[in-house]
Amino acid sequence: MYWIEIIGTFAFAISGIRMAAIKRFDLFGLYIVGLATAVGGGTIRDILLGVRPFWFDDLVPLLIVAISLVLYYFFSKLINKIAGTMFLFDTIGLAIFTLLGLTKALDLGCSFIIAIIIGALTGAGGGVIRDICINEEPLIFRKEIYALACVAGGIMYFLLEYLGAGPAVYHGGCIAGVMIIRFLATKYHWELPKVRLE
Amino acid sequence: MYWIEIIGTFAFAISGIRMAAIKRFDLFGLYIVGLATAVGGGTIRDILLGVRPFWFDDLVPLLIVAISLVLYYFFSKLINKIAGTMFLFDTIGLAIFTLLGLTKALDLGCSFIIAIIIGALTGAGGGVIRDICINEEPLIFRKEIYALACVAGGIMYFLLEYLGAGPAVYHGGCIAGVMIIRFLATKYHWELPKVRLE
Amino acid sequence: MYWIEIIGTFAFAISGIRMAAIKRFDLFGLYIVGLATAVGGGTIRDILLGVRPFWFDDLVPLLIVAISLVLYYFFSKLINKIAGTMFLFDTIGLAIFTLLGLTKALDLGCSFIIAIIIGALTGAGGGVIRDICINEEPLIFRKEIYALACVAGGIMYFLLEYLGAGPAVYHGGCIAGVMIIRFLATKYHWELPKVRLE
Repeated sequence: MYWIEIIGTFAFAISGIRMAAIKRFDLFGLYIVGLATAVGGGTIRDILLGVRPFWFDDLVPLLIVAISLVLYYFFSKLINKIAGTMFLFDTIGLAIFTLLGLTKALDLGCSFIIAIIIGALTGAGGGVIRDICINEEPLIFRKEIYALACVAGGIMYFLLEYLGAGPAVYHGGCIAGVMIIRFLATKYHWELPKVRLE
Repeated sequence: MYWIEIIGTFAFAISGIRMAAIKRFDLFGLYIVGLATAVGGGTIRDILLGVRPFWFDDLVPLLIVAISLVLYYFFSKLINKIAGTMFLFDTIGLAIFTLLGLTKALDLGCSFIIAIIIGALTGAGGGVIRDICINEEPLIFRKEIYALACVAGGIMYFLLEYLGAGPAVYHGGCIAGVMIIRFLATKYHWELPKVRLE
Repeated sequence: MYWIEIIGTFAFAISGIRMAAIKRFDLFGLYIVGLATAVGGGTIRDILLGVRPFWFDDLVPLLIVAISLVLYYFFSKLINKIAGTMFLFDTIGLAIFTLLGLTKALDLGCSFIIAIIIGALTGAGGGVIRDICINEEPLIFRKEIYALACVAGGIMYFLLEYLGAGPAVYHGGCIAGVMIIRFLATKYHWELPKVRLE
């Protein structure tokens, strides 16, 4: 679990760093946007839940973003080539962050609907903060089934729990739910409808 | 009071949904922008006051935004036609949210100046978050007497209380103050001056 | 110290007001952007630390922003002429806000790395909020050694403390560190490298 979280943090950091690089931000800007993408969702979660941001007691994410920046600086060509692999990592990160947000909300006494929302915010919030930082319309509002995958994973969690499954099953089910929906949505270009404007 | 709050939430949700639809966001994006507009001001208020967001214990706003989205999806032509009625609803929402923010701040021990500010943030904050989400300059900074109407309502509250009026009077006075200033400002195209630039 | 803080608040407020005026915001928009610039960093700090925003118990910043607005409205030509002096004030503000953020974080039990980050957020956060409000890419991500000067000041603080210096010395060292790095960076056009894109 811990290593999966690190992989997710790394993938989110690289996603922020790449988009900031396209915007011609300097190395400091890249670091901050990478950090905001990687820890932004969890920070929103912690502010809403009324607890201290998780990175106050855990400097590992700050370090991972720094390592991501160094790697991107020296191997940006390579990283752009393995964008498909990065998509896999990003989806793992999305799934694991959703589960972490959901369980933290439950631990702090939230109802299951709020827990699903907090899970989706934890997973998808970093990408929204990234897009606001680089002054773009948040991507998730237009193009992809992204946050909805988090919601699907959250529903899977409570469905399996309701059916009497053990923690390993509903934790795994949540992660699998997010990943499968995201993969299917990307593969088959699922898109939500838009309202027709005259 | 409860029904007025629901009307306000509905009006704010529709305002967010309409602007997101113009930006060609998908249904999920419409829901999130509608939600951010409807509960954003109250969420900022609760974060500043150090309490849990109000919608943690009250799922009604989440439901109203969902209903608003369904209505907008099927009846967008009709809703665009009754934009004048929506303006009335929106102003009711602005007034009621201002009063709710102000009284919550007082309940939690804030001074009256801070309570007026919190009231204005609660009323007008949702619109600012909406505009940041859709990547536009916040409308209230440029075009309308909007947040100032909230401030006027807040001043009315404390003026009437100071003059010895009962709660029903100063609560009503606050709501009336916001609505009257907003109607007059819109009808007579009141605008604040801008600084002349060379 | 108190007067230096007021000078810093004034400089930050003017910086926000000037940029909002360029965007043709009205007087209310100018006030809000000025306020967001002046108290935004400290508000982010207080939200992350889980305490009430400092301006709840201290209305002086709200007043200083109002005075700044009046001065700017009547003397904008003069203020634009003394932009060099404003740069000095702004740098003083940056340094003092960094120190205030850092010491508040320490008082509330944060580790020294978190305190440095909180210090930099307090100093540089207002400018980021300003740029998001006026719908521009945050300047600090692209052009200047700005937040890094805050980090340098924070390191100076702990270095001098570690070497056994008294509070006056490491407080002064932090302020001097921020100001010197910022002046040198501006004078010699120091810039961080950017990633080369193909």
